[in-house]
Amino acid sequence: MYLRWVLRSLVSRSRTGAYGLHGGRFFSAACSGAPLTRNPAKIPKILYACVLLFTFLTIDVVGIWCWLAENLISVVLMASMMSDIRSTKTIVQERFTLQLLPAKASEIVSMLLYKVEKPHPKEPLDPFALVADELSMLADRLRSMVVAEVPKLSSAAEYFFKVGVEGKRFRPTVLLLMASALNMPIPEAAASGAYNNFSKDLRARQQCIAEITEMIHVASLLHDDVLDDANTRRGIGSLNFVMGNKLAVLAGDFLLSRACVALASLKNTEVVSLLATTVEHLVTGETMQMTTKSEQRRSMDYYLQKTYYKTASLISSSCKAIALLAGHTAEVSKLAYDYGRNLGLAFQLVDDILDFTGTSASLGKGSLSDIRHGIVTAPMLFAMEEFPELHEVVDRGFDDPANVDVALEYLGKSQGIERTRELAAEHANYAAEAIEALPESDDEDVLVSRRALVDLTHRVIRRTK
Amino acid sequence: MYLRWVLRSLVSRSRTGAYGLHGGRFFSAACSGAPLTRNPAKIPKILYACVLLFTFLTIDVVGIWCWLAENLISVVLMASMMSDIRSTKTIVQERFTLQLLPAKASEIVSMLLYKVEKPHPKEPLDPFALVADELSMLADRLRSMVVAEVPKLSSAAEYFFKVGVEGKRFRPTVLLLMASALNMPIPEAAASGAYNNFSKDLRARQQCIAEITEMIHVASLLHDDVLDDANTRRGIGSLNFVMGNKLAVLAGDFLLSRACVALASLKNTEVVSLLATTVEHLVTGETMQMTTKSEQRRSMDYYLQKTYYKTASLISSSCKAIALLAGHTAEVSKLAYDYGRNLGLAFQLVDDILDFTGTSASLGKGSLSDIRHGIVTAPMLFAMEEFPELHEVVDRGFDDPANVDVALEYLGKSQGIERTRELAAEHANYAAEAIEALPESDDEDVLVSRRALVDLTHRVIRRTK
Repeated sequence: MYLRWVLRSLVSRSRTGAYGLHGGRFFSAACSGAPLTRNPAKIPKILYACVLLFTFLTIDVVGIWCWLAENLISVVLMASMMSDIRSTKTIVQERFTLQLLPAKASEIVSMLLYKVEKPHPKEPLDPFALVADELSMLADRLRSMVVAEVPKLSSAAEYFFKVGVEGKRFRPTVLLLMASALNMPIPEAAASGAYNNFSKDLRARQQCIAEITEMIHVASLLHDDVLDDANTRRGIGSLNFVMGNKLAVLAGDFLLSRACVALASLKNTEVVSLLATTVEHLVTGETMQMTTKSEQRRSMDYYLQKTYYKTASLISSSCKAIALLAGHTAEVSKLAYDYGRNLGLAFQLVDDILDFTGTSASLGKGSLSDIRHGIVTAPMLFAMEEFPELHEVVDRGFDDPANVDVALEYLGKSQGIERTRELAAEHANYAAEAIEALPESDDEDVLVSRRALVDLTHRVIRRTK
Repeated sequence: MYLRWVLRSLVSRSRTGAYGLHGGRFFSAACSGAPLTRNPAKIPKILYACVLLFTFLTIDVVGIWCWLAENLISVVLMASMMSDIRSTKTIVQERFTLQLLPAKASEIVSMLLYKVEKPHPKEPLDPFALVADELSMLADRLRSMVVAEVPKLSSAAEYFFKVGVEGKRFRPTVLLLMASALNMPIPEAAASGAYNNFSKDLRARQQCIAEITEMIHVASLLHDDVLDDANTRRGIGSLNFVMGNKLAVLAGDFLLSRACVALASLKNTEVVSLLATTVEHLVTGETMQMTTKSEQRRSMDYYLQKTYYKTASLISSSCKAIALLAGHTAEVSKLAYDYGRNLGLAFQLVDDILDFTGTSASLGKGSLSDIRHGIVTAPMLFAMEEFPELHEVVDRGFDDPANVDVALEYLGKSQGIERTRELAAEHANYAAEAIEALPESDDEDVLVSRRALVDLTHRVIRRTK
């Protein structure tokens, strides 16, 4: 399993040349004593690249190579999860017996670890704090953007933009950090076709993407709550509960139209199309969830597709929109998209775990709410793979609370939660890789923002509410 | 009343110079024996312009002038309502004593009437037949545009696009006719800034506006039916009734997002913004209707504003979009908008009458449905002006059927229905005027389309279902 993964990695990496280059560059940097990268986010990747490179070059006995690869992978996985140089070093030293490497390689790895440690003392990093001021400006502007001619419509539309109920502001945080992370010179060829003349107010336009994304997100919450007959949201009464279904539907429509008008003002039709499609995806995901057939409820593919539509499409497309507005190449825009997609999937997978393990207070809605609504998520799907007899239980539906208990019993016996967590970690890792694959930059702000984006991938995995 | 109207007309016309020009042009045409316009839609207007011009030039005794003006206005109003040259002539001869005009003017008017009669034998004209083939292509494309990944969502979204339940296709008919009516060379200056390079597929892009407009319209119907808990629509079960509120909300959102994606593909951000704003207007109108306060229910202004948002905004903005895509000047785009706005208002005013006078079968929903839902429309508002005691009845609300009967009794005694019909005719007339004010064209297709658009203004007034 590990071996196949390593081989696939090596083949795909060597095709793009990225890892080979990294390894090569840092090999010579290490030998010559020149400064290493100042970007801490890249360090686990560099270690990985160097060690793989040397291993590959110097060891040709398959048995030893496999053993090495297994150790390497676990070291790198753990290191990249921790994003902490000091612990990375400890783990490498503990888990990886350097003596097994040929003398030269071992020496270089030690040197790298030493170098890596010095220029990057661990600093506390809070992604939300980095953009806090901008977020509060953005929240003010959002409140003014959703003012309607009719007072009742205004109060409905602004309901979830009021101070205190703005939610975690996860999406705007990601998007503002992405805007900073991509703040680098654009190649002439790409820029000429794009809206380079807008570069002065580029940041304002990117903030607008964050605002539009929040409006689309809140509009979908309003309509979802109507569909689910929800009573609460973000710790207060849901809009449909407080002002009625009619106003909740209308307020959602209103937010969508305001989002569309704001989109049009950006004068970039690719971006309009991209974000309009996310609305379609939100609807498609919701319908998939509502109309699941028996065999679809057993399918992990169906589940992941639905999750992409419901949770990952909006954030991935808006990340891409941030890149497109800046006039970046298709490659860079794709990396921005990949980050959003994988972060979104990881987020939802953890959400699915928390629906089983969290408490009602920290989840914002009653725990076990998915399964009680008959929605089968990743933990249960993994459990079904281990215990085929669980299929029958799931097919019976969960209107009967006793059946919920039976399913939970199976889940408890299975590796469902652990495997979901692993899958989430894998996606979080892919997200971090997308950031690390961005074109290099020496700009301190760019580096800090990228570090914050990688940090968010860890927070998503670690979060308990 | 009439006098004020005539004076205002004269001042406003002479400001633009349009009527003076028409009068002058046809004066000399008549004197020289040169051919008159071949556009029958312009004839009542021409008569009006000529006679007003001569009257104004030759008579200065205020008393006679007033008497003349009153007769003129009624003749012109009736003539333009009938759009029938033969009856126009009869009416003019019957109602207007030509002897009262100075000899020269009288002679010219007679000549005009004679000339007018010859080149324009009345032809039967069916606006819907003119674009029937294009409409059926458009319906096919609409059905393919609303196909979704999830079967259930597809069946919901296509529900009102199925053969037989497409409705009157009033909006697409207007928009396709408008596209033809504006099919004329664009001044260089205006065209350079516009999308002249798209001129080849201009028609396809204008058809797309018609499709988008239908999608927005149907989306709003779906959500409105959810809000109203409606059971039927277009003679079949409403979507919320057949497939449930959830799917109706989702299908509406889906259509809106598809409309937005299609809009973006037109790559004209002014058009995106224009049509996105109509969604906001639909929502605003609906909310105004839902949240009307007591004093607002008595206000004709509030009623007309709400009617504009709910009915006229979509058709007026999409008419304007047709002009914008063709690269027309702001003036021409404004005339297209004016046509749509006034046609929409006239349509709704007649709808309000039919809600009182029509039968349940021909209305598609139960007669008196507005008042039974507590919605006070133009006929009742006019009745309230005549009978102030009706205010109290209206304030009591219409939950009690006995109260409905009392209100209807007052309405029957009042001029409410007649005055509403007059107001509708006034707006229909404004719509026709907008078409007649378009830059002249000799193209036969353009002329026929304009005639059809004017014909639609009469059909809207005459319709009984």
